[in-house]
Amino acid sequence: MDSERFQKQIAFSMECDKMKTIYRNTLLADGSRRETDAEHSWHIALMATLLQEYAPQGISCDHTVQLCLAHDLVEIYAGDTFAYDTEGYKSKTVREAAAADKLFAILPQDQCKSYRALWDEFETCKTPDAVFANCCDRFQPVLNNMATDGHTWKLNHVHRGQVEARLHLIQENMPELWPVCTDMLDTAVSSGWLTE
Amino acid sequence: MDSERFQKQIAFSMECDKMKTIYRNTLLADGSRRETDAEHSWHIALMATLLQEYAPQGISCDHTVQLCLAHDLVEIYAGDTFAYDTEGYKSKTVREAAAADKLFAILPQDQCKSYRALWDEFETCKTPDAVFANCCDRFQPVLNNMATDGHTWKLNHVHRGQVEARLHLIQENMPELWPVCTDMLDTAVSSGWLTE
Ligand SMILES: [Ca+2]
Repeated sequence: MDSERFQKQIAFSMECDKMKTIYRNTLLADGSRRETDAEHSWHIALMATLLQEYAPQGISCDHTVQLCLAHDLVEIYAGDTFAYDTEGYKSKTVREAAAADKLFAILPQDQCKSYRALWDEFETCKTPDAVFANCCDRFQPVLNNMATDGHTWKLNHVHRGQVEARLHLIQENMPELWPVCTDMLDTAVSSGWLTE
Repeated sequence: MDSERFQKQIAFSMECDKMKTIYRNTLLADGSRRETDAEHSWHIALMATLLQEYAPQGISCDHTVQLCLAHDLVEIYAGDTFAYDTEGYKSKTVREAAAADKLFAILPQDQCKSYRALWDEFETCKTPDAVFANCCDRFQPVLNNMATDGHTWKLNHVHRGQVEARLHLIQENMPELWPVCTDMLDTAVSSGWLTE
């Protein structure tokens, strides 16, 4: 064993433990607290496997799972940017690229490249796997919002059109899920969880 | 889309959200609180990818990741059994098998079978992938214990021999990691985190 290499891998794994301290806006389905990035990443990796039959053509479920597991790692330094935070989104790209440089540099060079490639692929969202992973990333918080009376939508005065814009990726790439999405949004509007 | 099938898949995914409410004995590396099963599952799935070069021969990293993601799902109903809880371990098999029956029955039949197979494979621990996943499951809490001055070891008056017995799987199947493990246990004993 190359012990310097191993020490870098362990240092990276321990740094990744901080994903358990980054809280998202989304509540757990039972409403008891906000979910962490580690929990969210686990959940969408599970969903990518569970819902693969609705995925875009030509996906690799295994590679999508890798994208899901790694997609939010940069938030260890950049923090979570709420999906409907217009100001935060302006600086998101720059903040997250700097975070990626810092975080993946902990790894041995070959793994630094492969983790960076996973994150770039997810962010660029051009491959079928990245599209599928991004769809899961957008679908899961909708389900948790529906389970918690629209908690984060109400808190942030979110409009239906904003959610629809974010779910457009699902409409285009996982069309079977779209009627389910519009049904949920209808319920959310009629319940006063989303504004029209 | 078969809407009944999809509803079962979503019901399962929402039930799995409860993995975020099952707290393990292990603390986060920063010591701030206990980690959840969802966080732990995410972490060991990440570690299986990161440390695959030390894995037993013939493993599939992708399948090991699936085992890691699913290995603790039964704890939604059975709860987490602490690794050194002798009493709890006596009833663990029965409790967890009942939980598996209940949880995976939420899924459509084909997926019920495939998730049950993942869990059975992990528990039986006979395939290279299951061995590797179990090694990750045992290695991660050691690292977090080392990061938190042996928190769960001290709290439960754990002996070095108990940890060694649990890490025997690593000694046998990921021998390159064994010197690292014994170094950590030496430190833990000399620091008073583990009894001799
Ligand atoms: Ca367990």
